[in-house]
Amino acid sequence: MTTEPTKKTRKTSTIWGGRFGAGVSGVMEKINASIDFDKRLYAEDIAGSKAHCTMLAHQGIISPEDRDAILAGLDRVSGEIEEGRFTFDAGLEDIHMNIEHRLSELIGDAAGRLHTARSRNDQVATDLRLWLRGAVDEIDRGLRGLQEVFIDLAEEHAATVMPGFTHLQTAQPVTLGHHFLAYVEMLGRDRGRMGDCRKRLNECPLGAAALAGTSFPIDRHMTAEALGFDTPSRNSLDAVSDRDFALEFLGSGAIVGIHLSRLMEELILWCSAQFAFARLSDSYSTGSSIMPQKRNPDAAELVRAKTGRMIGALNSLLTVMKGLPLAYGKDMQEDKEPVFDAAETLIICIAATTGMLKGATFDAQRMRADAGQGFATATDLADWLVRVLKVPFRKAHQITGNLVKLAEDRGCGLEDLSVEEMKSVESRIREDIFQVLSVENSVKSRNSYGGTSPRNVSEAAAEARRRYLAMDGG
Amino acid sequence: MTTEPTKKTRKTSTIWGGRFGAGVSGVMEKINASIDFDKRLYAEDIAGSKAHCTMLAHQGIISPEDRDAILAGLDRVSGEIEEGRFTFDAGLEDIHMNIEHRLSELIGDAAGRLHTARSRNDQVATDLRLWLRGAVDEIDRGLRGLQEVFIDLAEEHAATVMPGFTHLQTAQPVTLGHHFLAYVEMLGRDRGRMGDCRKRLNECPLGAAALAGTSFPIDRHMTAEALGFDTPSRNSLDAVSDRDFALEFLGSGAIVGIHLSRLMEELILWCSAQFAFARLSDSYSTGSSIMPQKRNPDAAELVRAKTGRMIGALNSLLTVMKGLPLAYGKDMQEDKEPVFDAAETLIICIAATTGMLKGATFDAQRMRADAGQGFATATDLADWLVRVLKVPFRKAHQITGNLVKLAEDRGCGLEDLSVEEMKSVESRIREDIFQVLSVENSVKSRNSYGGTSPRNVSEAAAEARRRYLAMDGG
Amino acid sequence: MTTEPTKKTRKTSTIWGGRFGAGVSGVMEKINASIDFDKRLYAEDIAGSKAHCTMLAHQGIISPEDRDAILAGLDRVSGEIEEGRFTFDAGLEDIHMNIEHRLSELIGDAAGRLHTARSRNDQVATDLRLWLRGAVDEIDRGLRGLQEVFIDLAEEHAATVMPGFTHLQTAQPVTLGHHFLAYVEMLGRDRGRMGDCRKRLNECPLGAAALAGTSFPIDRHMTAEALGFDTPSRNSLDAVSDRDFALEFLGSGAIVGIHLSRLMEELILWCSAQFAFARLSDSYSTGSSIMPQKRNPDAAELVRAKTGRMIGALNSLLTVMKGLPLAYGKDMQEDKEPVFDAAETLIICIAATTGMLKGATFDAQRMRADAGQGFATATDLADWLVRVLKVPFRKAHQITGNLVKLAEDRGCGLEDLSVEEMKSVESRIREDIFQVLSVENSVKSRNSYGGTSPRNVSEAAAEARRRYLAMDGG
Amino acid sequence: MTTEPTKKTRKTSTIWGGRFGAGVSGVMEKINASIDFDKRLYAEDIAGSKAHCTMLAHQGIISPEDRDAILAGLDRVSGEIEEGRFTFDAGLEDIHMNIEHRLSELIGDAAGRLHTARSRNDQVATDLRLWLRGAVDEIDRGLRGLQEVFIDLAEEHAATVMPGFTHLQTAQPVTLGHHFLAYVEMLGRDRGRMGDCRKRLNECPLGAAALAGTSFPIDRHMTAEALGFDTPSRNSLDAVSDRDFALEFLGSGAIVGIHLSRLMEELILWCSAQFAFARLSDSYSTGSSIMPQKRNPDAAELVRAKTGRMIGALNSLLTVMKGLPLAYGKDMQEDKEPVFDAAETLIICIAATTGMLKGATFDAQRMRADAGQGFATATDLADWLVRVLKVPFRKAHQITGNLVKLAEDRGCGLEDLSVEEMKSVESRIREDIFQVLSVENSVKSRNSYGGTSPRNVSEAAAEARRRYLAMDGG
Repeated sequence: MTTEPTKKTRKTSTIWGGRFGAGVSGVMEKINASIDFDKRLYAEDIAGSKAHCTMLAHQGIISPEDRDAILAGLDRVSGEIEEGRFTFDAGLEDIHMNIEHRLSELIGDAAGRLHTARSRNDQVATDLRLWLRGAVDEIDRGLRGLQEVFIDLAEEHAATVMPGFTHLQTAQPVTLGHHFLAYVEMLGRDRGRMGDCRKRLNECPLGAAALAGTSFPIDRHMTAEALGFDTPSRNSLDAVSDRDFALEFLGSGAIVGIHLSRLMEELILWCSAQFAFARLSDSYSTGSSIMPQKRNPDAAELVRAKTGRMIGALNSLLTVMKGLPLAYGKDMQEDKEPVFDAAETLIICIAATTGMLKGATFDAQRMRADAGQGFATATDLADWLVRVLKVPFRKAHQITGNLVKLAEDRGCGLEDLSVEEMKSVESRIREDIFQVLSVENSVKSRNSYGGTSPRNVSEAAAEARRRYLAMDGG
Repeated sequence: MTTEPTKKTRKTSTIWGGRFGAGVSGVMEKINASIDFDKRLYAEDIAGSKAHCTMLAHQGIISPEDRDAILAGLDRVSGEIEEGRFTFDAGLEDIHMNIEHRLSELIGDAAGRLHTARSRNDQVATDLRLWLRGAVDEIDRGLRGLQEVFIDLAEEHAATVMPGFTHLQTAQPVTLGHHFLAYVEMLGRDRGRMGDCRKRLNECPLGAAALAGTSFPIDRHMTAEALGFDTPSRNSLDAVSDRDFALEFLGSGAIVGIHLSRLMEELILWCSAQFAFARLSDSYSTGSSIMPQKRNPDAAELVRAKTGRMIGALNSLLTVMKGLPLAYGKDMQEDKEPVFDAAETLIICIAATTGMLKGATFDAQRMRADAGQGFATATDLADWLVRVLKVPFRKAHQITGNLVKLAEDRGCGLEDLSVEEMKSVESRIREDIFQVLSVENSVKSRNSYGGTSPRNVSEAAAEARRRYLAMDGG
Repeated sequence: MTTEPTKKTRKTSTIWGGRFGAGVSGVMEKINASIDFDKRLYAEDIAGSKAHCTMLAHQGIISPEDRDAILAGLDRVSGEIEEGRFTFDAGLEDIHMNIEHRLSELIGDAAGRLHTARSRNDQVATDLRLWLRGAVDEIDRGLRGLQEVFIDLAEEHAATVMPGFTHLQTAQPVTLGHHFLAYVEMLGRDRGRMGDCRKRLNECPLGAAALAGTSFPIDRHMTAEALGFDTPSRNSLDAVSDRDFALEFLGSGAIVGIHLSRLMEELILWCSAQFAFARLSDSYSTGSSIMPQKRNPDAAELVRAKTGRMIGALNSLLTVMKGLPLAYGKDMQEDKEPVFDAAETLIICIAATTGMLKGATFDAQRMRADAGQGFATATDLADWLVRVLKVPFRKAHQITGNLVKLAEDRGCGLEDLSVEEMKSVESRIREDIFQVLSVENSVKSRNSYGGTSPRNVSEAAAEARRRYLAMDGG
Repeated sequence: MTTEPTKKTRKTSTIWGGRFGAGVSGVMEKINASIDFDKRLYAEDIAGSKAHCTMLAHQGIISPEDRDAILAGLDRVSGEIEEGRFTFDAGLEDIHMNIEHRLSELIGDAAGRLHTARSRNDQVATDLRLWLRGAVDEIDRGLRGLQEVFIDLAEEHAATVMPGFTHLQTAQPVTLGHHFLAYVEMLGRDRGRMGDCRKRLNECPLGAAALAGTSFPIDRHMTAEALGFDTPSRNSLDAVSDRDFALEFLGSGAIVGIHLSRLMEELILWCSAQFAFARLSDSYSTGSSIMPQKRNPDAAELVRAKTGRMIGALNSLLTVMKGLPLAYGKDMQEDKEPVFDAAETLIICIAATTGMLKGATFDAQRMRADAGQGFATATDLADWLVRVLKVPFRKAHQITGNLVKLAEDRGCGLEDLSVEEMKSVESRIREDIFQVLSVENSVKSRNSYGGTSPRNVSEAAAEARRRYLAMDGG
């Protein structure tokens, strides 16, 4: 996927010309080799080989001497890679062959015994599961950290009034803390989905060999346990041809992306001059190459956009897997790049979101001012008619509609109408109706379970802290 | 979405001409009204209203008399719909207003009290969750039934030998029963995902009202319990703007689609003259309007194709939800058609797959013949070299490659080479190597956990019966 | 896809229970029959049959008497369908068999000669192309009409100043007319894409028969011409297995959707209390069931959302077609619903957008006020430094940045700084710099080709009227 | 997107731990910088700057001396990059700033004049269009080359008989050459779509500046012409916010992917032991790490799979663009990776397909044998009944069905029935019916326009050579 800068524009005929003209083997090597991206799996591959090797010796399939040589050799390979002294070779196709080849250079014949009773088919499935398990755990930690930021903010803003929107129109006043807690719920479900995905992916394909199992007396429970898996997978054909774990991860990740994109849309709106509810810190804003005054919420826009990337990754793999006959097919090699890209995108998006929120400031005064506009307490008025005058809600809705129209005509708010004016619409209206027309009273009154009242929000924040921040992410 | 047949081809200018020319209100009604598809929700809407009404009376918000009138009226509406005597009116936009309007015709003013302390925002979220919960339960039952068919077939074919494929090339012999059990595993994970989805969707939004909760003293736990939900949702903004449950369902459904499409690809291959491994029953085959001899696996092709439809539905809703600010927006009305379509598509696909498998016959003789082709036991030979001669696997792989080449040159199978010919490649080869070259012995020897040996398959089928068929689907 | 309302919630086990329990033939008929949706093709099917029949007679393959009987019979069938007197029967699978069956009831044996030298494979491909050609033409007319509305608005608002945004931050002042003309360009490209799609789809598959052509002496050019096609398709295998025309349409339609969704996002923002740049007419706004004051831009939200639907349709068919071997496969029956749905969705979205724009009002005063905020003329100041003082742009950018900071600290606009204050940053600044700081002068000065100056906009609107409204859409 | 290999599996908590813990600026730089991927645009960026600079001097906006310094400096930068001596710095965000920064190191103040009257918004849009134009041209050349291979093969196999499939069931005999020409048609449409895309993308955004145009007296036609564009774009807001060209490219590319994936599905089938119609050359086959006998069509599987990747890229960008308000937003930075990836994937897939076909061999004998199976000439028999006995086609279809059943019961082919046996079904059948039952005669008789007869195929191949190989690809 990484490509060297192209040559001059005017010579585009030569950009990829070489590729088409390349000897057949060049094209084949280029399309076939996966080492450019699967080298990410080196640690998992070595961990898997060590567990496999230890088990082979324990079962008497290889000798203790070979085992010791292999383990020591793998450690040396690992060291070489981590220290950047390892040369990856596309001619050796993939990470498995690169490592085994180097091992054989280091320890000779014993290296040739490592691949007993396994295949690259079960090996790569094991590696990818291990890698993804690590990513899922990291994502859970990231989501937990983001929940914590939201809960802190919710406590701080439990009574900060803002306009609640539906259809991006002022609907009813809510509190900013309540708004933040909505995201805590979304992220809580996200963590649940990631956890369920982890549970299902944590089965070990190693020992399924090419597709049918093996005649060697291996102990698959031993390798599964050594690698932290809950169990070996139960069917060898399924073990090498299943990529559900990747699809489930991509699907769950896309939903996290949806949540982040919704928040980013709000931040971008809130940072506009027209809303001016929020301001990002300098470190999350950028300037313009031409307009000296600009202060752009680039990070928010990028996080919003990167949802598209995660949806694309999900689509890619769904399409790849559709209609593939069992068992392993090379098509499945296309699983890695979408998984790597989606996981890494998600991680950086969560980190950026966390950073943005931590550094953002919110203009409570501006929010409060807008919360009072647009007849935001009309529902409170209607509810008063129902509660106090026993008017059926549908009729109360009509009466309130007429009062809104009256206020609109006068160019004032509902609370600016006189009782007499109100009585012209509904004669039984009394002075105490004005109590429900204040934004603060409106918010306070919404104390049904899950409602926006400041007391509710404080309690819900405390409850969320207990529920989510103690939650063990894997 | 349903459109009347168009007029004559040559007059296409008038096909939709009326639409563009239509009075503004016509276009608006057409794009805005959801009654054409959300009428599916009538039973859930009425159930929700009954629970809400009962709770309102219990809390003293409406009178017992009004409650009784409303409950009786709703039952009448329900009866009218079920008996086909109800007239749905697009002018009333949606199922909620259609029902409430009819209720008010039937019982007068009391109907106007039903909408106290709720909004269409929480109402539709409740309805859709209830509908989807029913669909998920039905899908679980369907998947369980399909697992049962597979387990029965696996027991029947525990020792039926077939060629195991990787890259659609003969790899190693496996058993047909083992192949079927791979699908039992896939469907088991599918049921797990559907179950997890159900768990997360089973929270009740009712009482979140428009977005902020309400000032009426409602009891959300009471309505939640009456409707079979585990709990009321915890945040009112989230309750009305969350569609995770639909996205998670669509994602999980797409993965089921992947599994079915893989199986269908196999059935289509197996029904070809070239494979001839299987034959569908007449009731799942169709003919041709021009070719009198055709016997097409249409149902299998349709199930394979409909995966695309489910992926499309998932994409639709992911795209709709991306970047929507809180709380409810009308965009979310586009949630219903993909959910309805995907659920109904999935249900019919599962039913068709179950029917196809039940009626299919498998040609064991043809499978057995192909299983022995293509040097399918070459791995067994290599493993013998490792096990008996203590050759490192990599070297054994090379020796076997040379033996395969030898056999290929002679135009025979590995088992047709003489010991002497074999010795020309590796002098220590002995007569007893031929034991591992038979397809039956190969299959028998794969008795590692999860491997394809007939004994394994029988045990695994029994274990699958215990694990999956007793599993409670919700 | 249409489903009757489900039964009671609590009995969901029976919702689709019948389906699973249904006799095999029930499931097969349900999944296999396409008449529910392909009846839309009746007019195209009949037109195709008439052309085919006329050609058969012309070539002497059927007799003139049979021809006359068939043509008269088809006209009767057409009449019955248009008058709603035709009974569609799922047992007859599709529109082709429904019509042929009725024809045979009406005219007897002669009907059996109509299917000579054709197959449903070429027949359905012909029908769908004809239908889509009509839809493309209608879409072109709709897009042209929308362009006209934009051009009218552009002329009206050629000098209406508004804030130009990048990153949703105030960037530079632009004119509303210029903004509208941006959409004229997008729609112009859309029409180009639709036209190119039409050009490629306008080849006639009829006569390809099942897949191989026919031995009857048919004249494919004659039928192609009779149906308005440019040419018969050149390869019979391709003719029956190609769905490029549908994919290209869906791709082009999705891009139209992107354009409409961008406009809708803007309308929704502009209708918010915080922007208040625009107001939709009552006929395109809706109210709330709970909040009596609401005025929601539902139509705009729906058009924005329906882009997701079109993307979903594109995905569905791409996934269906991926990896299908030639020639016709039943998978391709899944082409129709996404095409019908996307076309009809697009048509209603264009109509709704046209209606919304026609009825919308724009608040020029509010836009003008916001255009002057946020140091919107900072670029003009930097450009003045370059032009007048010969400062390199990069340095001018820095100086301007300092002046912006100065103004920000003083809490004023750039135009409110005194010359002395400015000189403290750059000593050569002179009084005439203030000319470039007014919003009106800024806008006027942007008269490079394609720039936003009112004179440019008027000329561009006139040019667009010439280019696009005279464009022949098909 | 490229990530260094991760640390040890068991320490996954530290895999990305640093990222979350990273100073805010680290996360921001990581998510914001595009230099890792947009460095591909260096040649286009420099070409654009040179054209811009030359024009600025021509218009008297910068001096000839500055122009000369800038042009010379840009050439030096270009040289440094091509020779690998350039250090890309993520701190400088993107390719534009990296180049400008280096230019300023090399030539000092004059470099600061280059960015006069432009912005990164129009600059990047210009760069990407230039890059994509080059890619489209390369793709056209690749597709043309692939058409040539197909046409050569079609001429070679004009009379090679194979079974024609519908539903993967034997339908009617066709010729292999005809099959190949079907792909020539598909690729011809692909080239048409790419050409139309190129036509629409070939408009120059340069000079649109940030979004509004500029007050400098630039000559946009001059830069457009210098860069090979047909015209400058007509609206500055559209110029910087339009990504249609990328979407249209991705859509057209996905359809190419569909075609390649269909061909690959066929090659994979044909290489299976069961079909055995084709054999890939060694250079396009791979082995197995465990099964010594394997010969896998990996390249075909990868090309089939990579369609998913192209569909994913299309989805990504469609989702990114949906609902973005004008003008430029940072979201659009996510356009590059899908475009680069899809273009490069497409190019390597076309090259691999070309290579595979060139080296493949086809087993005419095996194909011929299968072509005669499955009553493949039943349609011919029915057509004989229509033509000779004047039976209506529908009745002929029934009679043939009965004859097929008769043959099936006897376990023989239609041609193996005696005339007497046939007469038992339809008494008027005569001896000469056997002429139409041979596969060769069947194929020969399909000489309607576009049909499969060898003569047709030869003529169509010659015609395709004239039409497509002379076609100028841009």
